[in-house]
Amino acid sequence: MAKEIKNKKASIVSIGNEILSGQTIDTNASWLGGKLLSIGIPVVSSYTVGDCLDAIVRSLKLASDDAELVLITGGLGPTDDDLTRQAFAKFLGTELLLQNELLQKIQDFFAKRNLQMPAKNKIQAYIPAGAKALINNLGTAPGIMAEVSGRLFFVMPGVPSEMKQMFEELVLPELLQLLDGRAVVVKKLRCFGTGESNIAEMLGSLMNRGRNPQINCTASYGVITLHIIATAEDRDNPALSEVEGAQRMAEKDEKLLTELLGELVYGTGRQTLAEVVGEKLAQQNKTLAVAESCTGGTLAKLLTDIPGASGYFTHGWITYSNAAKISELGVPADLIENYGAVSEQTAAAMARCARKKAVSAFGIGVTGIAGPSGGSEQKPVGLVYICVDSANGCETKRFIFSHASNRAKRRDRDFIRLQAAQTALNMLRLKLQI
Amino acid sequence: MAKEIKNKKASIVSIGNEILSGQTIDTNASWLGGKLLSIGIPVVSSYTVGDCLDAIVRSLKLASDDAELVLITGGLGPTDDDLTRQAFAKFLGTELLLQNELLQKIQDFFAKRNLQMPAKNKIQAYIPAGAKALINNLGTAPGIMAEVSGRLFFVMPGVPSEMKQMFEELVLPELLQLLDGRAVVVKKLRCFGTGESNIAEMLGSLMNRGRNPQINCTASYGVITLHIIATAEDRDNPALSEVEGAQRMAEKDEKLLTELLGELVYGTGRQTLAEVVGEKLAQQNKTLAVAESCTGGTLAKLLTDIPGASGYFTHGWITYSNAAKISELGVPADLIENYGAVSEQTAAAMARCARKKAVSAFGIGVTGIAGPSGGSEQKPVGLVYICVDSANGCETKRFIFSHASNRAKRRDRDFIRLQAAQTALNMLRLKLQI
Repeated sequence: MAKEIKNKKASIVSIGNEILSGQTIDTNASWLGGKLLSIGIPVVSSYTVGDCLDAIVRSLKLASDDAELVLITGGLGPTDDDLTRQAFAKFLGTELLLQNELLQKIQDFFAKRNLQMPAKNKIQAYIPAGAKALINNLGTAPGIMAEVSGRLFFVMPGVPSEMKQMFEELVLPELLQLLDGRAVVVKKLRCFGTGESNIAEMLGSLMNRGRNPQINCTASYGVITLHIIATAEDRDNPALSEVEGAQRMAEKDEKLLTELLGELVYGTGRQTLAEVVGEKLAQQNKTLAVAESCTGGTLAKLLTDIPGASGYFTHGWITYSNAAKISELGVPADLIENYGAVSEQTAAAMARCARKKAVSAFGIGVTGIAGPSGGSEQKPVGLVYICVDSANGCETKRFIFSHASNRAKRRDRDFIRLQAAQTALNMLRLKLQI
Repeated sequence: MAKEIKNKKASIVSIGNEILSGQTIDTNASWLGGKLLSIGIPVVSSYTVGDCLDAIVRSLKLASDDAELVLITGGLGPTDDDLTRQAFAKFLGTELLLQNELLQKIQDFFAKRNLQMPAKNKIQAYIPAGAKALINNLGTAPGIMAEVSGRLFFVMPGVPSEMKQMFEELVLPELLQLLDGRAVVVKKLRCFGTGESNIAEMLGSLMNRGRNPQINCTASYGVITLHIIATAEDRDNPALSEVEGAQRMAEKDEKLLTELLGELVYGTGRQTLAEVVGEKLAQQNKTLAVAESCTGGTLAKLLTDIPGASGYFTHGWITYSNAAKISELGVPADLIENYGAVSEQTAAAMARCARKKAVSAFGIGVTGIAGPSGGSEQKPVGLVYICVDSANGCETKRFIFSHASNRAKRRDRDFIRLQAAQTALNMLRLKLQI
């Protein structure tokens, strides 16, 4: 089967009434499309069908007409409307067989939680004859892998976290084995501090289509990710293995882009700002305390999302009311009265008080108006003051984070809060650069 | 043609390389699915293809085999890789004809912006012979409508804002004209406190396929959503309008399910636990303070995600270190020494101290082991104690939230933290029930 998949295409089948009815947006297909492209397998078609046996079987036929690799997600749950298992068996022309090992795993899953396995979950231990089960470490639905006349099929759960884990742990290694003779290395650079179009201008022709490595750009809540996709074939350079060749190309571009973008680049791979800040704090043996108003815990949450955060993050205050700012942090009441809770002065006092109370190297204070109400002409929704205090003094900055249409008030609030917390981390990062 | 579409189905075709490669998530299909369902037209299939003439033609054939109504988005731009127009003409077996009126409109679009129309945009003024143009008020790409042997086709731009406006202004009115005599009402119930399969067992035959209202179930981080989809026709009950009829059916089921599931149901529509808890606190004029250890701000963030949270949430402490628990909250040092930071006693002391310091009606304390490290046999990763303290005394509960494989340590940590924060909100909710 080696080299089977080389230069081959993929098709995706997403299954679930909730996708067709618009109750759930199918992010799985898009995520898989990006993953497959990053190893050089283009997705040529994608089918979405409801929980209907015949429709699923038909879509599997169509997908396998289109491509040598078919990835299927959804419909593996325990309830009667989950029919992917049955449909896949019908498509393969085989029957579902109970796998006792799987049944045991599912029973263990419940037992660990001091629960009895509901009778309905037993169906998840059935796999089409001749196919292979893919173990699901996050849920009860095993995936299924099968090969039919040179075509490879992977069935995965629809729950995105379960699907992603299964793809990365079990599906991707299978695919990489089949890519013999060609190597694709993807490196990612993570940037913060400017917009996508600005970065595109800074990089110019490096982002041209057809260039190898190919450089793609995606943006999410202010974080710009540059994907460097280097492809090398065995014939490119006989002195190097394909992987070494692709690796060298990607590294060369990584260095080039890092030089061009300077301190806008905060990390690589999947690193988050909180992770990079945490690493630097740990390396420099420094601690951090935060005092949050408008972000209401978002900054502390980002910091403590990182395993081991307790090594450098010890104290956080969410002083949502003025009274809390005064009693818990010790911000002077007359300062709030004179300048307002949303002011440069209050942000600075919050950062200083937090640092002092926690006896930490750094203190961060964030105060602003997350909306949707509470804004005025002088202090509009989106106005945020952020202060980073340290032994070298304190730096306070004023921001107005994008406040968009009236129709999206809730999303706007989320955006402003996350943007404020990320910007605070970025201010601290720049202070931690050596 | 009136009533042609009645009891009919739809299929969606999304066109664009950027969707297949994962650079863009296709939100159009989902949005259209929701819109169509709300007028009683179920989407039965959805196809995504790249910018390739033959693939588009094939998908149009497949979609028109599936359904009487076909909605197509994307590929109407002016560049050479936009091929939907050409493919639609080929599918219809006709030619593209220049429509001078459309050309004028496109030229006007540029003129208004003091720009010359680029030559490439002329292609957008071509429409298949026999089809009708749909005016785009937001961009240069007109849509296309055509009817072929009782099947209706609408081609719309891929830019979501342009697509949505065109659908609501031009497509929806056409569809409503054809729908006379049927209405669909969708209601959602939100549940917390048990799993999907358990709820399915409790509801039994109510979830049978083909039942009207149809009841679907989706799950996300412990929140189970039940979708009640009621369809009524004018012949069902001549004394009621179809909308009233469907409304009554949905309400009847909503009541029935709420009775069956009891306090597992926390809300309706898109309500979150934090929203419901916030509403109840506001109604009862009660305040809340939280002291978090392992959740590290997650609980405070969920609470302050809700606009207006400052009305009932005033104080939060993230006491990530033992020192912070002692100095900031006043948890007795010997209590932590005797029982450990992760213990029923510490959780209770945190909740009590938070309530006392904030002078609030409720105090919540959360302490646990989010992992990946820090677990032991007695106190494994996932162990969390949650206490809700009030004038009626305090209730502390012990949980072990799912701890899965080693490879997913980070996601596991997120899961445990979010699950702990949601469970804390749910414990408070049950105390706020009147």
